[in-house]
Amino acid sequence: MAKTAAQKPRTKYVLDDKDIPAKWYNIQADLKTPAPPVLHPGTGQPIGPQDLAPLFPMELIKQEVSRERWIEIPEEIRSVLALWRPSPLYRARRLEKALGTSARIYYKYEGVSPAGSHKPNTAVAQVYYNKREGVTRIATETGAGQWGSALAMATTFFGLQCKVYMVKVSYQQKPYRRIMMETWGAQVVPSPSPDTQAGTKVLAQDPDSPGSLGIAISEAVEDAATRDDTKYSLGSVLNHVLMHQTVIGLEAKKQLERADDEADVVIGCAGGGSNFAGLSFPFAADKLTGKKKKLRIVAVEPAACPSLTKGQYVYDFGDTVGLTPLVKMHTLGHTFVPAPLHAGGLRYHGMAPLVCKLYDEGVIEAVAVPQIATFQAAMTFARAEGIIPAPESAHAIRVAIDEAERCKREGKRQAILFNLSGHGHFDLGAYEAYLAGKLSDYEYPAEKIAEALRSVPNVRG
Amino acid sequence: MAKTAAQKPRTKYVLDDKDIPAKWYNIQADLKTPAPPVLHPGTGQPIGPQDLAPLFPMELIKQEVSRERWIEIPEEIRSVLALWRPSPLYRARRLEKALGTSARIYYKYEGVSPAGSHKPNTAVAQVYYNKREGVTRIATETGAGQWGSALAMATTFFGLQCKVYMVKVSYQQKPYRRIMMETWGAQVVPSPSPDTQAGTKVLAQDPDSPGSLGIAISEAVEDAATRDDTKYSLGSVLNHVLMHQTVIGLEAKKQLERADDEADVVIGCAGGGSNFAGLSFPFAADKLTGKKKKLRIVAVEPAACPSLTKGQYVYDFGDTVGLTPLVKMHTLGHTFVPAPLHAGGLRYHGMAPLVCKLYDEGVIEAVAVPQIATFQAAMTFARAEGIIPAPESAHAIRVAIDEAERCKREGKRQAILFNLSGHGHFDLGAYEAYLAGKLSDYEYPAEKIAEALRSVPNVRG
Repeated sequence: MAKTAAQKPRTKYVLDDKDIPAKWYNIQADLKTPAPPVLHPGTGQPIGPQDLAPLFPMELIKQEVSRERWIEIPEEIRSVLALWRPSPLYRARRLEKALGTSARIYYKYEGVSPAGSHKPNTAVAQVYYNKREGVTRIATETGAGQWGSALAMATTFFGLQCKVYMVKVSYQQKPYRRIMMETWGAQVVPSPSPDTQAGTKVLAQDPDSPGSLGIAISEAVEDAATRDDTKYSLGSVLNHVLMHQTVIGLEAKKQLERADDEADVVIGCAGGGSNFAGLSFPFAADKLTGKKKKLRIVAVEPAACPSLTKGQYVYDFGDTVGLTPLVKMHTLGHTFVPAPLHAGGLRYHGMAPLVCKLYDEGVIEAVAVPQIATFQAAMTFARAEGIIPAPESAHAIRVAIDEAERCKREGKRQAILFNLSGHGHFDLGAYEAYLAGKLSDYEYPAEKIAEALRSVPNVRG
Repeated sequence: MAKTAAQKPRTKYVLDDKDIPAKWYNIQADLKTPAPPVLHPGTGQPIGPQDLAPLFPMELIKQEVSRERWIEIPEEIRSVLALWRPSPLYRARRLEKALGTSARIYYKYEGVSPAGSHKPNTAVAQVYYNKREGVTRIATETGAGQWGSALAMATTFFGLQCKVYMVKVSYQQKPYRRIMMETWGAQVVPSPSPDTQAGTKVLAQDPDSPGSLGIAISEAVEDAATRDDTKYSLGSVLNHVLMHQTVIGLEAKKQLERADDEADVVIGCAGGGSNFAGLSFPFAADKLTGKKKKLRIVAVEPAACPSLTKGQYVYDFGDTVGLTPLVKMHTLGHTFVPAPLHAGGLRYHGMAPLVCKLYDEGVIEAVAVPQIATFQAAMTFARAEGIIPAPESAHAIRVAIDEAERCKREGKRQAILFNLSGHGHFDLGAYEAYLAGKLSDYEYPAEKIAEALRSVPNVRG
């Protein structure tokens, strides 16, 4: 149960440079049973570090499978995180008032990073370890550009080169994210590109291909695998990526202490799972260890791409094409193509394996929300608190408001905490569509999911 | 002289809600001689409060002419400012290292406001006083949209209606700022509009008029003057606007104390003058009172619109059309049309009268910098510190870097402080032009200034 909130009407809780966490929290140490192994797609056997060595530096491979509870954050990483961390924790007093709720609403604001989201938290760490192991160039893919811009910034900080394969339709329609990456010195090409065999093959079949995240991943992986100076970098899903994001939750816990309060409900939107995990895993620790049994943790996904709530918990490919190792996760089938949702960061057929494990074990809940209701929540938030949220983050806001209204109905005085994972400065086209009444809710037919689920390979871990 | 800097390598200095200043600093109290009066354009006589009453609430008119040194900030304003204030003060260690300078560089970052610049500091105050005096609707003009979005946000916070006359060419070419204003509930129309007599007249002559700030001001003023429920609001130039911005400098002084340091050089870009004044006036106070005689304060303007460095200190109209009262300021002549500079916020023919007075008295310096060198500085900054600055703010960065390089040459260990007045998220088109080598430096011919200066009315205060 929450203590009484602080008496003084504070709006936010800021922390000093020195309060940036010194260690990441590795939830693998506290799982009831170990996370299922990642399997080789050919042999069906667990893969080893050497299988991943062409793509990732050894330190990240170690972190991926580590069972140590706390992993030290090198000072070189902390000094870069200090450019925007600790991020502020807000008490949403104006939103509470607008809702007339008896709940206390808090949000952790990750949009303060120069790239505008939580993504740089892991980009900086990944680039640092690559540099330490002699890598001089990193390749990655990006859809709308959120991850690509985070990596572009991190590589320029450490003096590495960066090549970003950007899904062609986004490259053409969203120039601002591309320019941002170029301002930070990255080379950005529209994918499919003639720079790789994978891209060349697609272009030969369809010179006007709009591209897809699956194709872009194939290009970036090929780039890294075929060049000695280059490794690959991924912005979500993997265990080490989620762990790098736990600075969010660790800071939030300290800030709630300053507020003399405790969370009853913790909420994050979930696409690949990294911002959700970053906020919630340090809180989930208290559930796993029995310290806070009543705490609720809620992952929010779009109704148009409901991997946790409608998918199956099975081994599937991480990418659309079916080239990656097999991971056990809640999946809609790797061939599932979600509707053209404005929350581009949530359009993923699967979900981070560690998030899925917690969901499977009943540690966390999940809920799917439709698009229009999500933008309604975003508008309510923007007019009360000022910040215009990213459409992805608005999913968390929707459920935070729903929970606050539940508290009002039930007369409960709970503390609700959500992750405002980024701002919407590059998503204003979506707001325009909403304001013009042009947004739609994608009803997803059960047959479509059932069909995509048939693409799941027949593998048991 | 600066004390030794703090030993611990801190990146930023954050303050708590409670450290938001309780009072604004009014520099009029410390001027050697009173600021010249504002004159009625018809009579040439000083105007009184009643002349301004149709446009502004009485409290703001009082603040405009007040000689009190400190004016209390109502708690209702402070609680809204707490949504982003105090803003962080950064020690730019990574920039210092990139430059190899012996100087210490600090920047105050105002881009943390939800509207992305310092403008909301005064928008919130102005809307508050309007509301207190029963006003339910505010009209204003905006060029690129920085000011309009700040006012849109402030009006939604206090439940007032807002109408923004947005220069038509910006309305068409920069939709994101417009959508931002609409997200916060403002009504935005392209100016010239058929909604006013002024707009109707222009449209009758030229239905395809691209509009201008001068026309938009005329429309907003007419709107306010002809409706009982509506007042007008201005985002810069006026004394009370500059005073509302002094929270920036007051916080910065406290933060430098925390850093155990003192500024030797204080720098801000200057268009209308409000962000420059906001940072520098609390420091100028120490010069005016003889406490810090050696402190240098530098206003930076674009070479393409150099009102301080090339204009005359005379009475001129505040607007392009010649409808406003006459103010004594450094002006290029109210008919001066600057080149289509990317730093739209610095394209003003005049300058805030209080900034001009300090310049005239030798309290502050001014320097004009060309556009390409400004973007070079912005790139250096973005790659070292992460944040992509607004083109306006990049003018301050240019001179901060120049000063740091001077320190390096002279072997001096000075502390340089500048105002990073906003981020460049809505200006990435300008960065694209720079990266593509398409920016130019506008050489402004002396004849052009001389001609515009002939538009200055023949009035002596």
